[in-house]
Amino acid sequence: MKLSPSIQDLIDALRCLPGVGPKSAQRMTLHLLEREREGAARLSDALAEALERVGRCRRCRNFTELEECELCSDPRRDQATLCVVENPGDVLAIEQSGSYRGLFFVLMGHLSPIDGIGPEQIGLDQLETLFEAGAISEVILATNPTVEGEATAYYIGERAQRHDVAVSRIAHGVPLGGELEYTDASTLAHALLGRKPMEKS
Amino acid sequence: MKLSPSIQDLIDALRCLPGVGPKSAQRMTLHLLEREREGAARLSDALAEALERVGRCRRCRNFTELEECELCSDPRRDQATLCVVENPGDVLAIEQSGSYRGLFFVLMGHLSPIDGIGPEQIGLDQLETLFEAGAISEVILATNPTVEGEATAYYIGERAQRHDVAVSRIAHGVPLGGELEYTDASTLAHALLGRKPMEKS
Repeated sequence: MKLSPSIQDLIDALRCLPGVGPKSAQRMTLHLLEREREGAARLSDALAEALERVGRCRRCRNFTELEECELCSDPRRDQATLCVVENPGDVLAIEQSGSYRGLFFVLMGHLSPIDGIGPEQIGLDQLETLFEAGAISEVILATNPTVEGEATAYYIGERAQRHDVAVSRIAHGVPLGGELEYTDASTLAHALLGRKPMEKS
Repeated sequence: MKLSPSIQDLIDALRCLPGVGPKSAQRMTLHLLEREREGAARLSDALAEALERVGRCRRCRNFTELEECELCSDPRRDQATLCVVENPGDVLAIEQSGSYRGLFFVLMGHLSPIDGIGPEQIGLDQLETLFEAGAISEVILATNPTVEGEATAYYIGERAQRHDVAVSRIAHGVPLGGELEYTDASTLAHALLGRKPMEKS
């Protein structure tokens, strides 16, 4: 059975969403047409609007509608500490933790020579300009604990040290609320290597 | 941390999709802005297009861009058999089974007096006009095996019989490939009640 072309087009278009396969795209399409026509119209507008308005912050490369994002232009943030992350989602996660008051730098990816992603593609020349300017005293490397994330962190760390910027890497270990029994081997290895002496009470 | 308004609007708008909560809406938004700007533009257009073009078939109430849908206007379909289903997705599922060549009638829901959905809201007056016209010899009730689906099937069955239309209900039982051990009690009860004598070889 052939579906109406504009229904089929909508099913195909929904598959650009992460985690949406042909079956869920079909379910979403029928749901929208049956019960959410208003929501679908709002979604169509919101997509067009976001595409038109959202660009990158010229300082930290994060998404923003402004020239310089709200975080970068907030004078209450600690201007001497810079946290380097891979994605905008990482900024949100760290902000939600409420334990960081410095600035960010968003790579929008990680080094991956095999995919043609070198230092330039993830803004490392721009990052080095920040190091050169001398306003940053510490850089916290918060890339993901994957092979590529580690390589990227190592590369940035080297560059920072050349400019006498202190470098640290976020700690890896057993997550809070996690159970040892269900923690994977390499996380446990990190947790053991990174052990800290307990303070005497 | 506050997100840019047009990013937040897009996150909110994505939540009209079934099964999409705040976390996945955020992930989808960042994914679209980071890596799928083209796909997002196509999705925005496809939504607007579908909303403008897709209406209901005047005969079977299914979604179509035409006055009468392709199935209803296909002369090769058996015009004397009518299969009543709740949703357009059911039509697709039955068509994909390849074992039905008659016409459909799509209720777009089921009787649910508590939600103010009576016979009129699911097109039963229109369905009765079809029974009255006398062109239908059998109606197959393929509503869902839920309390509301059964009630709706019973209601339609009664009406059809008044117009001397033969009525049948699709079979319920253990699904093919399913295992008895993991089949729920009421499905097993249906499977036992609906047992058929085995043909002698």
